[in-house]
Amino acid sequence: MQHEICIQTNAEQEIIDITAQIEKMINIKQGICTVYVPHATAAIMINESADPNIMEDILTALDKIIPAGKWKHDAIDNNGAAHIKAGLIGPSEQIPILNGKLGLGTWQGIMLCDFDGPRKRKIIVMVQ
Amino acid sequence: MQHEICIQTNAEQEIIDITAQIEKMINIKQGICTVYVPHATAAIMINESADPNIMEDILTALDKIIPAGKWKHDAIDNNGAAHIKAGLIGPSEQIPILNGKLGLGTWQGIMLCDFDGPRKRKIIVMVQ
Amino acid sequence: MQHEICIQTNAEQEIIDITAQIEKMINIKQGICTVYVPHATAAIMINESADPNIMEDILTALDKIIPAGKWKHDAIDNNGAAHIKAGLIGPSEQIPILNGKLGLGTWQGIMLCDFDGPRKRKIIVMVQ
Repeated sequence: MQHEICIQTNAEQEIIDITAQIEKMINIKQGICTVYVPHATAAIMINESADPNIMEDILTALDKIIPAGKWKHDAIDNNGAAHIKAGLIGPSEQIPILNGKLGLGTWQGIMLCDFDGPRKRKIIVMVQ
Repeated sequence: MQHEICIQTNAEQEIIDITAQIEKMINIKQGICTVYVPHATAAIMINESADPNIMEDILTALDKIIPAGKWKHDAIDNNGAAHIKAGLIGPSEQIPILNGKLGLGTWQGIMLCDFDGPRKRKIIVMVQ
Repeated sequence: MQHEICIQTNAEQEIIDITAQIEKMINIKQGICTVYVPHATAAIMINESADPNIMEDILTALDKIIPAGKWKHDAIDNNGAAHIKAGLIGPSEQIPILNGKLGLGTWQGIMLCDFDGPRKRKIIVMVQ
């Protein structure tokens, strides 16, 4: 089963919890859920969502590791740092499905990372 | 087929080779093995295990990239850096199964990374 | 279905677009394509390939994050940085197959990253 989620992001950089929307799509007892973002300046990350400071900490850390405005690609699009961050984090995650539910840990959520927003972002979810 | 491994880690930060335990679970000729850690301060990484210095080098590198003690989440749990590292590395790896064996390269092993130990960590292994 | 690609890289560090070779292997309507590199100093990354500057920017960024020549493993192989980079990026990507095609975004391509070339590198592709 293949599904699609559309998310409107609201800031230049934003991490958004999409766990609840994906949980609703799980209709098999056991398998793998693949979450994939088909954009080259966005990524999927699994992390804690209970404390929103973690999302902020992650964006701060990535900005220090990959500072904006220093890249050859900036001459074209001015979003070189967003591409590098997306490449580092990666566009997908695979989560086991156990007893008809996502096998996430207590403190794990599935996050969309937009590094070049605000934009309308699409996410593909495969349950199999 | 779904399996579970439990690992007691022994240090605040530790990378432990779990390849042998996963290899024993492979009972199909061809497919994918998904290794998933349901913890928000741990990760799964594939790398060389023959030289234990690599594990140490990786922990050193991550400590430089994501220094401890500088994060908003530290006010709650004092483990902000561990969350960011876990997000960067990611909680899972997928390894092809070829001729009834893990299709790892000669120098590749499957590693559990604990960034906030010592703890008892669970790992989910799906063979399909 | 399992396939293999062999790539001769041409530089010490190189990112090579392998999307066209993988696209040809897709022979099912819906599923997942797993791309896996069985080498501990190489990685698979998804990013934009239209502007080759992005590949250069990524190598520049990784060299700054993980400088060469500072690692314990260098005493054995002089490629400690290559191992750490490979661990950070990871050896595999999973791409959904939709309507008989790779579900990549308009600007996404599948890249082999060689951090310790030039070498002959093998890539395993599973379509299922």
